[in-house]
This record gives sequence, C-alpha cells and structure tokens, in this order.
Amino acid sequence: MHEPLRVVTIQEARSKLEEHWQPQRRVKLFPLDEAGGMVLAEEVSSEIDLPPFDRSDYDGFAVRAADTFGAGEDDPVELFKVGEVLAGQDPEVELERGQCATIATGAQVPNGADAVVMVEDTTSIGERVEVRRSVTPGENVSERGSEIEQGAKIVSAGRRLSPQVHGTLFACGVRDVKIFCKPKVAVISTGQELIEAGSKLGPGQIYDVNGPAICDAVNNCGAEPSYLGIVQDSFSEIEERVREALSDHDLTIISGGSSAGAKDIVPETVNGLGDPGVLVHGLAQKPGKPTFLAVIDGNPIFGLPGYPVSALMVFDQLVAPYLRFLSAAPEVGRKRIRARLAKKVLSARGRRELVPVSLDEGDCLLAHPLRKGSGAITSLANADGYIAISVDQEIVEEGAEVTVNMFGGSELA
Amino acid sequence: MHEPLRVVTIQEARSKLEEHWQPQRRVKLFPLDEAGGMVLAEEVSSEIDLPPFDRSDYDGFAVRAADTFGAGEDDPVELFKVGEVLAGQDPEVELERGQCATIATGAQVPNGADAVVMVEDTTSIGERVEVRRSVTPGENVSERGSEIEQGAKIVSAGRRLSPQVHGTLFACGVRDVKIFCKPKVAVISTGQELIEAGSKLGPGQIYDVNGPAICDAVNNCGAEPSYLGIVQDSFSEIEERVREALSDHDLTIISGGSSAGAKDIVPETVNGLGDPGVLVHGLAQKPGKPTFLAVIDGNPIFGLPGYPVSALMVFDQLVAPYLRFLSAAPEVGRKRIRARLAKKVLSARGRRELVPVSLDEGDCLLAHPLRKGSGAITSLANADGYIAISVDQEIVEEGAEVTVNMFGGSELA
Repeated sequence: MHEPLRVVTIQEARSKLEEHWQPQRRVKLFPLDEAGGMVLAEEVSSEIDLPPFDRSDYDGFAVRAADTFGAGEDDPVELFKVGEVLAGQDPEVELERGQCATIATGAQVPNGADAVVMVEDTTSIGERVEVRRSVTPGENVSERGSEIEQGAKIVSAGRRLSPQVHGTLFACGVRDVKIFCKPKVAVISTGQELIEAGSKLGPGQIYDVNGPAICDAVNNCGAEPSYLGIVQDSFSEIEERVREALSDHDLTIISGGSSAGAKDIVPETVNGLGDPGVLVHGLAQKPGKPTFLAVIDGNPIFGLPGYPVSALMVFDQLVAPYLRFLSAAPEVGRKRIRARLAKKVLSARGRRELVPVSLDEGDCLLAHPLRKGSGAITSLANADGYIAISVDQEIVEEGAEVTVNMFGGSELA
Repeated sequence: MHEPLRVVTIQEARSKLEEHWQPQRRVKLFPLDEAGGMVLAEEVSSEIDLPPFDRSDYDGFAVRAADTFGAGEDDPVELFKVGEVLAGQDPEVELERGQCATIATGAQVPNGADAVVMVEDTTSIGERVEVRRSVTPGENVSERGSEIEQGAKIVSAGRRLSPQVHGTLFACGVRDVKIFCKPKVAVISTGQELIEAGSKLGPGQIYDVNGPAICDAVNNCGAEPSYLGIVQDSFSEIEERVREALSDHDLTIISGGSSAGAKDIVPETVNGLGDPGVLVHGLAQKPGKPTFLAVIDGNPIFGLPGYPVSALMVFDQLVAPYLRFLSAAPEVGRKRIRARLAKKVLSARGRRELVPVSLDEGDCLLAHPLRKGSGAITSLANADGYIAISVDQEIVEEGAEVTVNMFGGSELA
C-alpha cells in the first residue's frame, strides 16, 4: 500500500510527472491523400520541377523569338503554322526557323520554340500567321522549374496540412509524408454503480458519463481515444484493465466512481504495477482531491475525479496540454475569455477552487456559476468553462470581472 | 448554348442562386455514442428520473429520520444495524423502527429509510450504532428525479454535442438523437492537362491540386466531400460525371482546368442538364471571372476557377457559408483579422480584387501580398487568407491597415 502523498498544486503535479515522463511525439509515414489536416513532422521538398515543362501562359502561338524581332503593328512578320498544342498534349511538332504552332494556355511549349505570342497580337490566314508584336526569348512562357525546382524545400516541419499546403504537396508530386501520429489514449471508468449506456438500469445503478465524455474531450485534443469500459472496484479487475491499457496506448485515463470505501483501490492497484508508481495523489484545489498521477515503466496514468464536471475540469488542466502537444493540435478558439460574474460565489479560504460556469451573451458577457448539488446534471449540460478562485479569496462579488477557462469545443469558443 | 450573362457581385450571385435554391438542412436519427461533436436537430428530454433512485450523498447510515429526533452529542440514539448497501447494489434490506443500514456514497437508500446520518456523527459497536446528531426527512439524500425528471427537457435544438452535453445525454438514458446530417458534396476537377496524384507525369501534364484541396476545404466546413475525379474537356464526359454528382449529393463543385478554348464547355454542358440551368456566369471581381452558379432541378452547382488560390478564395466567399449553414458547423477561429500591409499593392480601377496574403506575426501582424506569377506554388503554400481591394481603389499603400479574411483552418486562426 502506497503512503499517502501531500496534496500539490497543478504546477507541482506537472513537474513531478515530468521527472519521470517526457512526452515524445510519434512520427509515421502516411499517404498524402489521407493526411489532410495533419501536421508535418519533417520538412518537405518537391519531387518534381514545377511546372514540369516550359508552359505557355496564354492562348496564342509558340514561336522562335528571334523570328519576331522587328515585328510591329504596321510591319508584321509572317510565320508558317505547322501544328497545334493543346493543354495536356505531348507537343509532337518541333519548330524550325519561320515556323509557329498554335498553343493553349497551360500547354507545353514545343521544341524549337522559346516564346509565345498572344493570340490578340496575331492574324491567321489559313496556315499563315501574321505576328504584329515582337517577343523576347522566354516571353509569355513559365519555364520548367520556375515555380519550384525538384528537391527544393516546399514547407517546414510543423506546418499543418491546410487545404493550401496539402494542395501544394500534391502539385509537387509528393506521395507520402511524415506526420505526427495521434496519441492513443485508453479511457477507463471505475465505479460499482456504473453501467454502460444502452443497458437497462438495475436497482442502484446509474449510467456512466465519464467514459464517453472523456473520450470526446480526448478527441477534441486531436488524440485517439479507446474506451476500455467500466471496471468494478476490485484489485484484480482494475489491474487487468490497466495492464491492457498500458500495453497499447501512449497515455491512460481512469476516472473514479463515487463509491466510497473503494476510494483508494485504483491508485493503490496502479502503484503496484511498476516503477515509479503513483507520483501525485491529491491536488491542492477543489475539485481535485481524488486526482492522482502515476508513471508505470514509462507510461503515464492520469486518475481523474468521478464527478463529471470535475473530471472534465481536471482533464482540461492536466491532461489536455499534454495531448495537444503530442498530437500537435492547434488551439481551438479562444481558450480564456473575460466575463462578469452573474452571481456572487463563496469559497473556503485556504483552498483553490474551480467553479464551472455557463456563459450568456447579453450587453456584456455574463458567467453564471454552476454549483454541484441537486442540479448536477444541469450544470454538466450547461458548463461552458470554469473560473478559478485563488487560495486567499473567500468571496467573488456579483459583477466582478473574471477569467473563464473555456472547455475546448464550446459553442461560444 | 446559353447566353453570356452579365458579371455580378458576390451578393447578387447569392441572391440569384437563392431564387432557385433554398438550402435545407437534412436531419437523421443517430446512435448517441456516434454523435459526439454533432449538432442536435431537436430538443432532447430525459428518458429517466435522475438520480433513478433515492441516493445517499455520503458514507454513513440510512435511517428513519424520526428515530433520530432528539439525538445529540451527549444524548445519542442507539439504532440496530440490519444490513449494508454499497453503490450499485440492490438494497435488499427494509428498515423497521429502530433499525439502520450502513450505506455508501451513491448507493440506493433502502425502503423504510428516509435520511442518511454521516459516518462522522456515529459510533459503531458491533451491530449497535450510536447516532449523535438528528437528521430531518430527506437529509443527505438526493431524491429520485431531483436532478431531472423523466420527460423533462435537457437541452434545446441547435446545441452541439460537446463532451459536457454528450455526457449529460448519456446520464439521462438517451440512446438515439436527431442530428443535422453532414451535407454530401461532389467535387470534380476539369482540365485536359490534369492527372491524379500518384500517377506518373506524361508530357504536358500536371498534378491536380483543386480536387484534394477543395475536398479538404469542404471537410473543414463540416461537410462530407466525395471526389469524383478529373474529367476531360468533353461534353459527354462532363455530362456523365455531373449527372453522377447530382444523383447523390446535396451540392456539386466543379473547378475549371486552365485549358483555353474549352473554357465554356463546363457551364454550357451544365446548362443543358435541366432547369433553370446557369444563373450566374462571371463575378465582378478578380479572381472570379470563370465562376458560374447553376441550379439543376433543385440541385446547386458551383463552378470555381482553375487556379487553386482563386478557387479557394471563391470557395470561401460563395460555397463555405452554405456548407457551414447546412452542416450547422461552428465558425473555426477568427474569420477576419486586422493587419498591416507589408508591401503596397496596385489594382486596376473598376474591378474588385482579392489578393492572397500570408501573415507574419512580429511587433504587429503583417500581411504579405502573394501575387500569382512565377511563384504561384509558393503563394498557394503560404496563403493564410486574402484581402479585398474595392472597385475604386488603385493602390493600397505599404503599412495600411487591412482586413484579412482568413482561410478556414489556417495556422494563425
């Protein structure tokens, strides 16, 4: 049985965890067409010259520039049309002196030609083309490799594959990219009284909320949750399920049921599974008392409170930052916003307290405190975020300006 | 062949489209456990009373309150312990006068009991329990249905299934919910010179960028893209592919290749497929000239320019608002931000112009204009959004404050 540990602040909890676990992003080679929205783990270079050939910028005639020298409005040069090149075609023709070929925008400039005369500067009479404006070598042509050369850097590591960046890599012939993997997260609920959604409630039973809600929150951090279900308050069941979690996940989250007596079974069982075991047990804030952090042979385990709003607040503070780092997920919306407190809140001196709030946009943004109690389910449905009341504050008055930490994915974010 | 239409503003284009097409959200019944993040299309009510039974708020003893009346620190009442109820258990015991039962937090209060005495107010000696504090009927008990009653409203239509809301519905025994469906969007690329990613480039060919980039952009709007591939510039191929698109999608997007001559084949073909046909051809802005809008037997078709940055800018203006409405998708991040122009931009008077920009966070946010040209692919990779230069402006000076319309999913958003 592990010794009771001193309650610590969130910052201390993170430091203790990071003494034994340094989050490392995993990298994977991924087909480009399935990688939209993901984050590049390496710099990417072009596989091809772009354009891959000398390309006409306009509809007109491919010419040898030298043939047009001296051409003017009143002094046209006459060329002999020997072929036509459409976009996407292999230009089978090769120009000799005095020859030209009809060419479309985007088409490949044929051998022998080095410039394009725009159609509006010409007059065609059968096979003869009068050119009324001279062009210099390269004029109206995008030279092969002028956008980017094969092997040149396109984008840096760390860029997200937005439609623009993703499209660029397609243009450059890239097929596979190294991306940061979604971290795999095991989610376990514990509690004698819990049953899974879809089952029929028996006497004394309630539906599990934390399993699906924490999976959603994991998803919102760009990570991949797998819900391992509910375990009863028994050493052997907890041990078996946690070992399953550790074997195949980057991170494990266990939320406690509310059943008493069994309160310490989870951290005690976890502590016996490997080294260094439980590092933190209890946060110096309300809620947070039942929170524990452990590392078992390099794998982190986060134990969250059983009460859903508390579980999600502690998730947001302790787990989400690691998941967002591991998945290289962007911040979604505003994380903190200022609002006025709609109703005064009392708090016990000597303890930091988090209070869930719902937001209400009127003349100014109002934060309504939602207290645990008979309306617990309403406070879960309506919580947009939470405010923190510091250790030395006993009261926050109605109308006071507060900072609301938004839950990820909130409506107002 | 349809008559050439007058170029119109974006606002006029939307009005003309909406004369023949009113976007309608589709609704579907969905299993709750697959509905995380989706938006409710109906109000949802609780399937059960919550808590589903009279629940103990503390560890202690279930009692008949009347038995404890008069109990005090120096004047305890003695009760006889006849059973134990743990969380999740069916309380098989039924209390008579003078009896009590051990009870855990979250456990069901047994028949006969109407209150709970906290363990710290008692002393147990074998089967005898001394109660040192009286309780009133209902004390320390959350009555069945006190959080929410069966049939009572939990959340309104239009709420997103955030982890909190989703969790609440699980708690209330909900199994299926009506949600707004993701609109199904067909994406087609046209152009003689295009080939799909993964193929080997032949002479005169380039990789298709718009197909995957527009699919990504559709995805970012909460819609479901299906890429129907590249069609050549032929009436019959275009007709066949567009009919396929219309048969099974809410909306169709076709982007034009750059091949000239064939420029009007797409809108002409579309116009022949049904009524009312092409409604808009050409926007009064640069880029936007090749844009067309059509409605065929109630189905909207958006024709976008072939140049990828242009296609994505027009998508953002014309298509994205409809897709976000249809999918009930939230705005992601800030849509418009203020920045200073890093370099002056010239524009032709008499035409509205959109200029793609990349953003650069220094002392102040700088918007670097990205002009089409030899670095086209770089401007695609780096575009974070675009600025609009109005019809009567010929120059926007370096350092001028500009409003940047952010592309959805941009890094800085």
